[in-house]
Amino acid sequence: MRRNEEARKEGGEKLGVLLVGVGGAVATTFMAGVELIRRGFGRPVGSLSQLGRLALSPDGEDRRSIKELLPLASMEELVFGGWDIFGEDCYEAAVGAGVLSKEHLGLVRDALREVEIFEGVFERRFVSSLEGDHTKEGQYESLFEAASLVREEIRAFKRKSGAGRAVMINCASTEAHIELEEERWGRVHRSVEDFERALKENKSHPAIPPSALYAYAAIEEGVPYANGTPSLGAHSAALKELAEHRGVAISGKDFKSGQTFIKSALAPAIKARMLGMEGWFSTNILGNRDGLVLEAPQNFKSKELTKRSVLDAILEPELYPELYGELYHRVEINYYPPRGDAKEGWDNIDIFGWLGYPMQIKLNFLCRDSILAAPIVLDLALFMDLAQRLSYGGGGVQRWLSFYYKSPMVGEEARERPEHDLFAQLLMLRGALREMAGLSSAG
Amino acid sequence: MRRNEEARKEGGEKLGVLLVGVGGAVATTFMAGVELIRRGFGRPVGSLSQLGRLALSPDGEDRRSIKELLPLASMEELVFGGWDIFGEDCYEAAVGAGVLSKEHLGLVRDALREVEIFEGVFERRFVSSLEGDHTKEGQYESLFEAASLVREEIRAFKRKSGAGRAVMINCASTEAHIELEEERWGRVHRSVEDFERALKENKSHPAIPPSALYAYAAIEEGVPYANGTPSLGAHSAALKELAEHRGVAISGKDFKSGQTFIKSALAPAIKARMLGMEGWFSTNILGNRDGLVLEAPQNFKSKELTKRSVLDAILEPELYPELYGELYHRVEINYYPPRGDAKEGWDNIDIFGWLGYPMQIKLNFLCRDSILAAPIVLDLALFMDLAQRLSYGGGGVQRWLSFYYKSPMVGEEARERPEHDLFAQLLMLRGALREMAGLSSAG
Amino acid sequence: MRRNEEARKEGGEKLGVLLVGVGGAVATTFMAGVELIRRGFGRPVGSLSQLGRLALSPDGEDRRSIKELLPLASMEELVFGGWDIFGEDCYEAAVGAGVLSKEHLGLVRDALREVEIFEGVFERRFVSSLEGDHTKEGQYESLFEAASLVREEIRAFKRKSGAGRAVMINCASTEAHIELEEERWGRVHRSVEDFERALKENKSHPAIPPSALYAYAAIEEGVPYANGTPSLGAHSAALKELAEHRGVAISGKDFKSGQTFIKSALAPAIKARMLGMEGWFSTNILGNRDGLVLEAPQNFKSKELTKRSVLDAILEPELYPELYGELYHRVEINYYPPRGDAKEGWDNIDIFGWLGYPMQIKLNFLCRDSILAAPIVLDLALFMDLAQRLSYGGGGVQRWLSFYYKSPMVGEEARERPEHDLFAQLLMLRGALREMAGLSSAG
Amino acid sequence: MRRNEEARKEGGEKLGVLLVGVGGAVATTFMAGVELIRRGFGRPVGSLSQLGRLALSPDGEDRRSIKELLPLASMEELVFGGWDIFGEDCYEAAVGAGVLSKEHLGLVRDALREVEIFEGVFERRFVSSLEGDHTKEGQYESLFEAASLVREEIRAFKRKSGAGRAVMINCASTEAHIELEEERWGRVHRSVEDFERALKENKSHPAIPPSALYAYAAIEEGVPYANGTPSLGAHSAALKELAEHRGVAISGKDFKSGQTFIKSALAPAIKARMLGMEGWFSTNILGNRDGLVLEAPQNFKSKELTKRSVLDAILEPELYPELYGELYHRVEINYYPPRGDAKEGWDNIDIFGWLGYPMQIKLNFLCRDSILAAPIVLDLALFMDLAQRLSYGGGGVQRWLSFYYKSPMVGEEARERPEHDLFAQLLMLRGALREMAGLSSAG
Repeated sequence: MRRNEEARKEGGEKLGVLLVGVGGAVATTFMAGVELIRRGFGRPVGSLSQLGRLALSPDGEDRRSIKELLPLASMEELVFGGWDIFGEDCYEAAVGAGVLSKEHLGLVRDALREVEIFEGVFERRFVSSLEGDHTKEGQYESLFEAASLVREEIRAFKRKSGAGRAVMINCASTEAHIELEEERWGRVHRSVEDFERALKENKSHPAIPPSALYAYAAIEEGVPYANGTPSLGAHSAALKELAEHRGVAISGKDFKSGQTFIKSALAPAIKARMLGMEGWFSTNILGNRDGLVLEAPQNFKSKELTKRSVLDAILEPELYPELYGELYHRVEINYYPPRGDAKEGWDNIDIFGWLGYPMQIKLNFLCRDSILAAPIVLDLALFMDLAQRLSYGGGGVQRWLSFYYKSPMVGEEARERPEHDLFAQLLMLRGALREMAGLSSAG
Repeated sequence: MRRNEEARKEGGEKLGVLLVGVGGAVATTFMAGVELIRRGFGRPVGSLSQLGRLALSPDGEDRRSIKELLPLASMEELVFGGWDIFGEDCYEAAVGAGVLSKEHLGLVRDALREVEIFEGVFERRFVSSLEGDHTKEGQYESLFEAASLVREEIRAFKRKSGAGRAVMINCASTEAHIELEEERWGRVHRSVEDFERALKENKSHPAIPPSALYAYAAIEEGVPYANGTPSLGAHSAALKELAEHRGVAISGKDFKSGQTFIKSALAPAIKARMLGMEGWFSTNILGNRDGLVLEAPQNFKSKELTKRSVLDAILEPELYPELYGELYHRVEINYYPPRGDAKEGWDNIDIFGWLGYPMQIKLNFLCRDSILAAPIVLDLALFMDLAQRLSYGGGGVQRWLSFYYKSPMVGEEARERPEHDLFAQLLMLRGALREMAGLSSAG
Repeated sequence: MRRNEEARKEGGEKLGVLLVGVGGAVATTFMAGVELIRRGFGRPVGSLSQLGRLALSPDGEDRRSIKELLPLASMEELVFGGWDIFGEDCYEAAVGAGVLSKEHLGLVRDALREVEIFEGVFERRFVSSLEGDHTKEGQYESLFEAASLVREEIRAFKRKSGAGRAVMINCASTEAHIELEEERWGRVHRSVEDFERALKENKSHPAIPPSALYAYAAIEEGVPYANGTPSLGAHSAALKELAEHRGVAISGKDFKSGQTFIKSALAPAIKARMLGMEGWFSTNILGNRDGLVLEAPQNFKSKELTKRSVLDAILEPELYPELYGELYHRVEINYYPPRGDAKEGWDNIDIFGWLGYPMQIKLNFLCRDSILAAPIVLDLALFMDLAQRLSYGGGGVQRWLSFYYKSPMVGEEARERPEHDLFAQLLMLRGALREMAGLSSAG
Repeated sequence: MRRNEEARKEGGEKLGVLLVGVGGAVATTFMAGVELIRRGFGRPVGSLSQLGRLALSPDGEDRRSIKELLPLASMEELVFGGWDIFGEDCYEAAVGAGVLSKEHLGLVRDALREVEIFEGVFERRFVSSLEGDHTKEGQYESLFEAASLVREEIRAFKRKSGAGRAVMINCASTEAHIELEEERWGRVHRSVEDFERALKENKSHPAIPPSALYAYAAIEEGVPYANGTPSLGAHSAALKELAEHRGVAISGKDFKSGQTFIKSALAPAIKARMLGMEGWFSTNILGNRDGLVLEAPQNFKSKELTKRSVLDAILEPELYPELYGELYHRVEINYYPPRGDAKEGWDNIDIFGWLGYPMQIKLNFLCRDSILAAPIVLDLALFMDLAQRLSYGGGGVQRWLSFYYKSPMVGEEARERPEHDLFAQLLMLRGALREMAGLSSAG
């Protein structure tokens, strides 16, 4: 690990936050929020990097703010830019998203209007429900050229904005699922070599979605990459290899913001008490662009996979077959326009106790997708940048950030299993922060 | 700590489980369940001592069953007895409670009928809604004599049942709240000397409820005492002092079985993400004897206090005033006969995120009080007995059992604060078990 | 009934709407809404008088708008005034109530500021949680004088505003319950004579709350009186007698806006299918001034009585003892500040079907008290005025308006039972409107 | 209408209840229940014919039991039989369905075992999820022959059981949807002639499901036919024509038992108050055979159509466009095995009030499908038989029974629109019963 002193020195520079889907609800809510908070019109609720604390001593006493203990970039140092397949400016886009009040958005209109938006890499085959009007279509002959365009834009952005460092965060719509286990698709992701060959030989490829191109471009530019969606991104053997090789931090995937966040807290509680579980039915209604995209079965598939994995990993039916061996888990997502961005989840959980007697838990979460996701974008931007500056773990997969993801990324070769238990993830996160802050391991 | 070998040797003897309120729903569900499980008609779902596992190595692999790693008494070794203010036999009482099916109860009728029931110590002033018909009324001239009667019964029970060891668990109805902070009441609980003087000088005392008498008798007999109710029990300076002096394990109070159990899992999750909370409204409907007793304001007060403390302790508004400083927490319990023992909780939680935008969580728990409490009785019987045999912590308050309680008992003198976070409690419990099993501290 | 022609002629005059509690959430939401709707900034959703239709022919075809069929006052003709025990102007009060958006209120600020507010008649004994700063205290020597002051204000208001006619609607806080069945209290309400004697002989009387004074004053002035609260108002033998004698329309009491509205729809449905019911548990959380006032047991009692009566009247346990004979009905209201005016109800209903097998319905209503009540104020103002002009039923109790009330007023002498079934009430309402419109009875 | 005297005379004979899907959960729960009730082990809760009352006089007083006022067959006179594609006896089938307790079923085992079960007409194309083992496959060369086999069985059943009269009720699994609007399919249902030609010319036809064959057979035998499922049954121009011609009562379709029953009560309440509605989202989880069959998209389509029509018909968006013009209605059904027959519905309703302010209603119905449907089977058997004996309406479509159906059948030629409002349906039902009982029309 590089010394904190050095890392701290660079802290004075600007940090570029490059958002894929910069005009989407999550990205605009994040950027508008940072601007509002800077000006004193709101607080960064939901952000561990801004509000969290760590104890100085192992007995848990004398807790200091994380911001104070670690050389994180400050909110003042952030500058924003990104890519989008729609051309409207970020103010208009934010108004359209309907997440923040007109009053709030009015206060930061100019800042939002000035955010630079590069044309997005778009392929219909991965997002059939949308029709982009602001894309790189026709500007490249191979996927490799497309990636090169993105790389140039990264460099241009840093130059123009004066950002010495940058991180890239994928907040775009969910792409169609790609079955990497299928031999014919997975091959191109086996190694950096395979992947780059495919980039050069194809103008479009059924197993290489735009998210993988952006991830590749970021890593090649030495820019940490975090994936807030269920799309492929850097989630392949090839890109993990590249990230390790280049010493670039990567993490993902799919922000754990709403129903799955609660699920990853309730399931460990039920297991802690050794109560059995027979079924868990989750349904969601949401009316934003996300909901529309997820109506397409291939895109829902991506989401469903990240949402479903959580229970098995937490409950370990193989170890506790009499408690969880018969568990029936079902996740539904329904497009329901009246609700707008204010996603709502309803869960029914069938548990059983002493002698097998059944009980039920029903949970209704009236949440706001982007309100929950925005502080995660902030935390990831600051924590990924910190890890990169400190070369934490030597770059590559940042497993300690599993706390933020529905489907946490783990290293390729190992028998490593992703950790889904929210509280185990929290211990891991706090452990890494303590280590970077030079504190003893407990507390 | 005494050596495991020695402790293991005693394992062959019978362990007496002495239940205060032995004819109540919790106690009969526990005893009937143990009988059914012994005969292969059910599984001890909800019991960590029976189904839980610990990893042998720090990396979390090779997990073995807790039963295998620790010299716990086995379910075959348990024998039951106790006190009740109602005279009906435990089979009749269990049928009346309506928790287990007639089919289940029919299979263990004889075993339930044979459970010895001593007359209960009853004082109207502490439980105004009930009228006992099987009490020690008129058999003693001072509370000290009443305690002596209980002590004789403990000895008689052990003799008759062949139990070399015993534990006492309070499963009786909730008593009226006693304000220990009030000088006039609290005095008698300041020290063993004060307490014993009061016992000798009074035939009845407004600050000495039956639960304290039972606890005193148990400790004097060297019998570990666990308090599953919000009643006073051993929760006083005097009795903690006595327990430490005699080296007797005590723990309490109020089983964390339903709504509070879930609360102690959800609140840490919300805090983990640094989401704010403006309000938490909890209401319960229940129709069993518990519900009837809790209709009386003074008895509800006892319950409310154990139920309310949990949120402040977890959320720490003093450290996070912008997130939890304005929290409004309200707990209601309503007697509602149609539901019987199948208690139902409804919670509404008002949280807020990024920039203060509000969201809501509603949780409806259709639970069964006694089904959730019975395995806790089992775990506490076995773990208290284990701690006693191993002289774990030198006797006195067993803080590591906080996991099971709404209002965990802590030592008197210290600045110790009770831990309410379910996952912190679980770490503490697992840590103690690992220590007793001679395993390394992590894993 | 007077001829429609005549009635229609008077339609050109202004209609004064005099609101008791004119600065409260319901009254200000009503007035602001009328202003906004007049200016085209909103629609009178929830108002049958504005949006409802009646069929011209008995076969249900050719449905015309109620406004077109009946000589109702138009929204343009309404002028507002009233009484309040708080002195702030109606704009400030509306902002404080937090029901309508600042944007909406800003558009009608001036109109709200101009609403005339007379000092309220206030007695602590009936509303212990509030402390009025704008009252008639010290201005009268007897209750009769207090009523005279109110009468003078009514006349002054009409003069000043140019209103040829007026209606009075009680939207004030709920007063403490008065047990009219108790001989000592009920006596004063037995006849007009008794009542007036008590008014003259007392400066304050434990059985004569302010609401009864207002009602008396209105009736004496020939102004129809509607009671939107559970307070006594005109709900006594004395005032019904007076209203009949003077030919003044009266109706009440307690707007059926939220949970009870739904209850009065669901209960008839369950009964229609001859399903049994074992229990109905209703809890409410609300944070506005209403909630605070209802924390006081005597005020809650008033509310509870109007809320509880509905089920027995609908289900008729005396006729269907095997279905409803054992019904346990419980209603709770809880003050919960985080929710503000946005009241929330949670209902659990235990029903049973074929052979007695149990089922459950849970209903969670996230409603807005004043948003539901405001259009009821509008309908009552217009319908009461219409009934008065047409001398419908010869004045006195307007039973056909039961649709709007939790505890519908019926005539004194008769064996008349109040109708609580929402759909029976709707048939009654439509029948009366058809009659006034000169249409055949069905359709 | 024939005279009651005559009708009453026939009352002494036995009434055969012929159930299609006689081994299904609904049919076995119905038959077991009738047996249990006859023997005094339960009550016919949910049955209007058994528990309902009608007022003798128009003022609603002096209410007498429906059973007393009308010459209905008594429960003692019922005899059961039917068809099923599974060969197990009705006791085994009932145990497998898991609706009634083993205790209840044990009491009527013999009666259930004796129920005659004819082989079912089965075609994979209409129910792809099931595989019948007790079918008429290979026993006929044309659909006409298949219908003839059913007719012979009807006659055989009546002979053997001594039933002078019979009714047929379809309780089988939902068949795949047939688009009658499509020219190529609908043709065969245009007239009796077309239909019979198709029966004779085909051994299997994509637009003629088994339910239509059974309906045809029943009508030809003069046996009233009621359709408790969304399948086609008699819901075609051809069979309505035939039923009218033969003077045979028919009604349908799809029992309104759970979520739709509640929807048809809540929607009229919301409309009664002229509250707006923006969205209604309904999801169901159920684990019985019904749930499995409905997983197939074509079968779900049948169900969805009957479930969706209800809102538009009640709310009349064409008349109230500002309130219901933008309504988004979505219905989901999910197979969820843990729940068994105990279907659960969750509804979220987005309504709006005064000035368009939004509110939400959430309804969670923990119901039991067969417990709700069984008394409907009883009512329909008795009411259809009564209508047939009295030649009520001259036979054909019994619109007055709309109360029991999700998708009420109306006459073919008319502009008649189906009535979905539960309370309008109830008025229609009571009106018809009053007419048959010779009572005045109101009351």
